[in-house]
Amino acid sequence: MMTQQQLVKRVLTELLQQGVTLPTSSTQSSGGIIMDNFLNSTSVVPEFVGASQIGDTIGMCIPSVDAILLDHLHVSKKFTVLGVLSSRTGAGPQIMAMDEAVKATNTEVIDVEWPRDTKGGAGHGVLLLIGGYDPSDVRSAIQVALDNLSRTFGDVYNSAAGHLELQFTARAAGAVHMAFGAPEGKAYGLICGAPSGIGVVMADTAIKTAGVDVLSFASPSHGTSFSNEGTVHISGDSGAVRQAVIAGREVGLKLLAQLGEKPVNDFPSYIR
Amino acid sequence: MMTQQQLVKRVLTELLQQGVTLPTSSTQSSGGIIMDNFLNSTSVVPEFVGASQIGDTIGMCIPSVDAILLDHLHVSKKFTVLGVLSSRTGAGPQIMAMDEAVKATNTEVIDVEWPRDTKGGAGHGVLLLIGGYDPSDVRSAIQVALDNLSRTFGDVYNSAAGHLELQFTARAAGAVHMAFGAPEGKAYGLICGAPSGIGVVMADTAIKTAGVDVLSFASPSHGTSFSNEGTVHISGDSGAVRQAVIAGREVGLKLLAQLGEKPVNDFPSYIR
Amino acid sequence: MMTQQQLVKRVLTELLQQGVTLPTSSTQSSGGIIMDNFLNSTSVVPEFVGASQIGDTIGMCIPSVDAILLDHLHVSKKFTVLGVLSSRTGAGPQIMAMDEAVKATNTEVIDVEWPRDTKGGAGHGVLLLIGGYDPSDVRSAIQVALDNLSRTFGDVYNSAAGHLELQFTARAAGAVHMAFGAPEGKAYGLICGAPSGIGVVMADTAIKTAGVDVLSFASPSHGTSFSNEGTVHISGDSGAVRQAVIAGREVGLKLLAQLGEKPVNDFPSYIR
Repeated sequence: MMTQQQLVKRVLTELLQQGVTLPTSSTQSSGGIIMDNFLNSTSVVPEFVGASQIGDTIGMCIPSVDAILLDHLHVSKKFTVLGVLSSRTGAGPQIMAMDEAVKATNTEVIDVEWPRDTKGGAGHGVLLLIGGYDPSDVRSAIQVALDNLSRTFGDVYNSAAGHLELQFTARAAGAVHMAFGAPEGKAYGLICGAPSGIGVVMADTAIKTAGVDVLSFASPSHGTSFSNEGTVHISGDSGAVRQAVIAGREVGLKLLAQLGEKPVNDFPSYIR
Repeated sequence: MMTQQQLVKRVLTELLQQGVTLPTSSTQSSGGIIMDNFLNSTSVVPEFVGASQIGDTIGMCIPSVDAILLDHLHVSKKFTVLGVLSSRTGAGPQIMAMDEAVKATNTEVIDVEWPRDTKGGAGHGVLLLIGGYDPSDVRSAIQVALDNLSRTFGDVYNSAAGHLELQFTARAAGAVHMAFGAPEGKAYGLICGAPSGIGVVMADTAIKTAGVDVLSFASPSHGTSFSNEGTVHISGDSGAVRQAVIAGREVGLKLLAQLGEKPVNDFPSYIR
Repeated sequence: MMTQQQLVKRVLTELLQQGVTLPTSSTQSSGGIIMDNFLNSTSVVPEFVGASQIGDTIGMCIPSVDAILLDHLHVSKKFTVLGVLSSRTGAGPQIMAMDEAVKATNTEVIDVEWPRDTKGGAGHGVLLLIGGYDPSDVRSAIQVALDNLSRTFGDVYNSAAGHLELQFTARAAGAVHMAFGAPEGKAYGLICGAPSGIGVVMADTAIKTAGVDVLSFASPSHGTSFSNEGTVHISGDSGAVRQAVIAGREVGLKLLAQLGEKPVNDFPSYIR
């Protein structure tokens, strides 16, 4: 497991920050024997668009996808120009980011898949496929989505015991529609807590706060890939949706904190 | 990932125990920038009942659940007073604990959901919803369940390679019935091993030991949320069920130990 | 979680290698109180065949399985002599290893199950059941499979962000047929990337490289247990399949490296 390598590095960093000294001859150990001796080139492949440490997200574009492969993919509409956004952690943030990307480009979301991942955490990761007519459009959409991640991760709060995720858009587009069944053009909000029971109370508080339409409530055995999340998806008037999301966040932060640690976000909150 | 924070802390604790010294000016670093500057109050919300480090379990009560949310929940029977018990790790222990709670109070289990969780381990977590007519009954049931966790985690054995779980009750009630299909009022036993193959051999040994009814055998692709557990659910005469559980435990401990580490329980065994 | 114990040990090892000194009175702390005081014997049970640190894989044989248990197992054919191969990490490697084992013995694969595991990683683990007429045949098959693991893990490449898996056989047998739908007797190849989007581009490159039959493309919501893997299964002419697998590997290594770390294999690559 290479997540262990990350952890080892993180612990070493923390220790060094706290004043533990290491001998100076520290070689660049990568934690394992490097055996793949056939890999000569490190130049990137043409399909690569960009990557982000945020959620371990990678963006790619296939300018002309193989026809046989296309038949085996589970896409809602067949395009030969394919965009791929794929992550280990997060699904909501990438979907919200892609929602902005499809608004800004001539592309469509044609597949949303939900691995049960988060690298051992309680949530998902995501596989997003988009289609377009022009490779430059698709590459641009993938880039826009990658650029939006630091914003859409702004209301993801983590603690040792779980996480919260809040999302809001005043105008839902194709990504949010395909992923969450939100009506396009209307405001949409996502209120999620993990462990999932926290999401139940967040949803109750949010819905009571403002008059919104409840699209669905997703829980471990219903509407998730067995993630440990309770999530209410809401739609309606922009002000009401925002107010409901903020109310859900407030109660969620207090409840998750009861499991021992104050939940923190890695980027500034964008829902205010 | 905030599980990393836990690990960093645990490693630091271990190092300090082993005599490594840190400089004294160690500030309270929580491993990330704290950005959620809108959270002013740390007072707990009224829905909170209690929380336990055991399995990262949180208990809550909604005295009057929103009617629209109730329509979207997947409950077997609609109550307006809702109790929530939700955890990252463990499902069996919380269900057994809740079984005692519904025996002791005027409440019913109305939903059991199984996230694939255990924070990167091989098992589940759980989302339990209960309903009642009086908030004080429901709060009391949640509290009884939380109080029972140190007992019902007594026969959960962990090692680096996997885990075992054993459960026994002389008289199954509504939680065990809904979760495992056990006949109410009869003795019930759970014999579980992870990785799942160990559970196959444990089940074989247990059933051969005593005359019991086999309710089901759950495995990664059947009757679990893709957990890596092999679990046999048994019912019947109290003495026979207990004997079968103990025999399964003995063989399981020996097999799991072959993967490198002796499995240990965090609380005293209760099945004797 | 005992994975934390492993990590603590690993960090300590790393620190010691880097020159941090610990006091000499380090007792054998196993990271928790050892409570299972009823376990007197450490002799292995007769069902045990062998275990491997590779993927935390355990092999067992039940010479005469309980008839009631057999009814509750999900096997394609009923044998009273049962072999069990079960792991936390890897499914492809164990299946390929078992494919060699069934070729070499008078046994059949009767169940393949896919936990969502990898100890917090992006992939599966596996539960394999085989049947035979003679316990010595079955034990021998399990042993052959265990012995093959260091080979079949040779083209599994890990990094902090994900992993790649490549498999190739010139002649598929019963394990590969049951697990992946590969025609028996023909060459078979597996090309897998995680996060799953990398697998999409690997598949596209592989199929374009050589004329092969595409059996299926598995992704988080289709044909996996919600793992974060994109996997194409191919069949056909031995040379073409090999060439396609190698081409997929090359692009996969470059893409996964873009997420921050060069992926490495723990054993020598076997596909050349």
